[in-house]
Amino acid sequence: MSLLVTGSIAIDTVRTPFGVSEDCIGGAAVYFSMAASFFSPVRLVGAVGSDCPFDLAEVFAGRDVDLAGLEVRENSKTFRWAGTYHEDINKRTTDLLELNVLAEGPPSVPDEFRDSEFVFLANTAPALQRQLLEQVDKPVFVAADTMDCWIEGEPDDLGKLLKKIDCLIINEDEARMLAGRSNLIKAGEEIIGMGPGVAVIKKGESGSLVCKGGGERFILPAYPAAEVKDPTGAGDSFAGGFMGYLAKVGRTDFESLRKAVAYGTVVASYTISEFSLQGLSSIERSAIDKRLEVLRGVTQF
Amino acid sequence: MSLLVTGSIAIDTVRTPFGVSEDCIGGAAVYFSMAASFFSPVRLVGAVGSDCPFDLAEVFAGRDVDLAGLEVRENSKTFRWAGTYHEDINKRTTDLLELNVLAEGPPSVPDEFRDSEFVFLANTAPALQRQLLEQVDKPVFVAADTMDCWIEGEPDDLGKLLKKIDCLIINEDEARMLAGRSNLIKAGEEIIGMGPGVAVIKKGESGSLVCKGGGERFILPAYPAAEVKDPTGAGDSFAGGFMGYLAKVGRTDFESLRKAVAYGTVVASYTISEFSLQGLSSIERSAIDKRLEVLRGVTQF
Repeated sequence: MSLLVTGSIAIDTVRTPFGVSEDCIGGAAVYFSMAASFFSPVRLVGAVGSDCPFDLAEVFAGRDVDLAGLEVRENSKTFRWAGTYHEDINKRTTDLLELNVLAEGPPSVPDEFRDSEFVFLANTAPALQRQLLEQVDKPVFVAADTMDCWIEGEPDDLGKLLKKIDCLIINEDEARMLAGRSNLIKAGEEIIGMGPGVAVIKKGESGSLVCKGGGERFILPAYPAAEVKDPTGAGDSFAGGFMGYLAKVGRTDFESLRKAVAYGTVVASYTISEFSLQGLSSIERSAIDKRLEVLRGVTQF
Repeated sequence: MSLLVTGSIAIDTVRTPFGVSEDCIGGAAVYFSMAASFFSPVRLVGAVGSDCPFDLAEVFAGRDVDLAGLEVRENSKTFRWAGTYHEDINKRTTDLLELNVLAEGPPSVPDEFRDSEFVFLANTAPALQRQLLEQVDKPVFVAADTMDCWIEGEPDDLGKLLKKIDCLIINEDEARMLAGRSNLIKAGEEIIGMGPGVAVIKKGESGSLVCKGGGERFILPAYPAAEVKDPTGAGDSFAGGFMGYLAKVGRTDFESLRKAVAYGTVVASYTISEFSLQGLSSIERSAIDKRLEVLRGVTQF
């Protein structure tokens, strides 16, 4: 089935204990699209400024990523982010955040994308996420990400969004904040009560937890990566693998959700193994299936 | 096979958001023995003072826990610990720590325990752990726990201990500290290089990770507990289930280690569901097997 993503396209500068990657391509929609493209065609909606140094057609060459929803705005500048990951690679500091084009109105969903069935609304203001979602006619399964600043700053807008989506994909700290619960199982159930039928809670190197109404639960560790070079984009790659797999099989029953989480986990493990998109863009689909079997192996008893 | 544990017997006072449990029974050897007794006979070695309000024979009534190694010291006082768990139940403050009998010489291993095959040395000074281990003739599989103060304060003693044991069971923060590595997979491998063939890293509500020489790995989430009343004793109960299962099957191949970790995980989930020993002491073995199947169910894809 068709899969649409709305989200950022970024110029990133990333420092980690393993080196520096200056002015490299990043952004939620980019990581998501690359990850999802291993499973399903992707329709990308996002905006850049005229300063954008990347040719996205080239970035996605050979992959089924439709760029009809890419807006290049003449008088705008591309979103920029710079960050430093520390010795404990789970901790990062934001060095620079220039919203630029992201502070303007959202891009439009092209007419030919309005029939999209699977939709991922990457993190942005929940009012904008709703505005984007309203441009899709009859989506089958809508997932969204959000973050602390919207949970604290725009709770009403976020509440409205949650009633319109099927799945919230969220970090553990933010899940606790949104639910007002420190126990993650309870937090997941609380979030489901806010609207989405499914809550996917990302726990970084500790993996992820899926809660679905009716008490269904799935817990999966992260892929056991001995080397993490650059965690940037892990969450959006996870979401890309997750949604890409669901769109491919066209089902969202719990068995499919489990497998989608496993694929998301494996895809994210490639993202963090190198800087920027290098880890993801250098592999074949067969590598993903191999790691899926490794992940199955290390989690079975 | 026979299973020996050496460790503390404590008078605990525990405060959690769910209530207070004053002067209740605790201590590593107690939690370990109760947990292991579901699988295997246990030989307990530990000391209390004459003030000890607990009749351990009664505590372990109906269970195969041999108390021949229990020393009641006339002029000593029992170890006391008091702590408070906060709203985020993963965080705790120590309110009181009276070593008392633990600050004296270690108890002796009775002659009839010297032929023990499986041994667990609960956390104490590594020099004492070695002294206790020297009283066992030809152990087959020795596991030990340790903590930050010994890693920082007694690195040489700890280094010597690590060369004498087969398995280190350790918290994630302490594993990182001991190995000088933030990546847990690398930390596990580093620890194996220090002597023990197996490293079991406990990650609290995120489960556990097992590393064995030759690159073997197993990762298991915690049991999905929606209510945690009192986390005290979780780690020692985990170790008890783990070692109890291994002693029962008499094997330490990787398949057995995986299953032992799963049993440890489930047993610990009962410990944290109530204060003190109440969660563990009120269940039947069949309940453990039921939760094992639930755990298998929520982790399969």
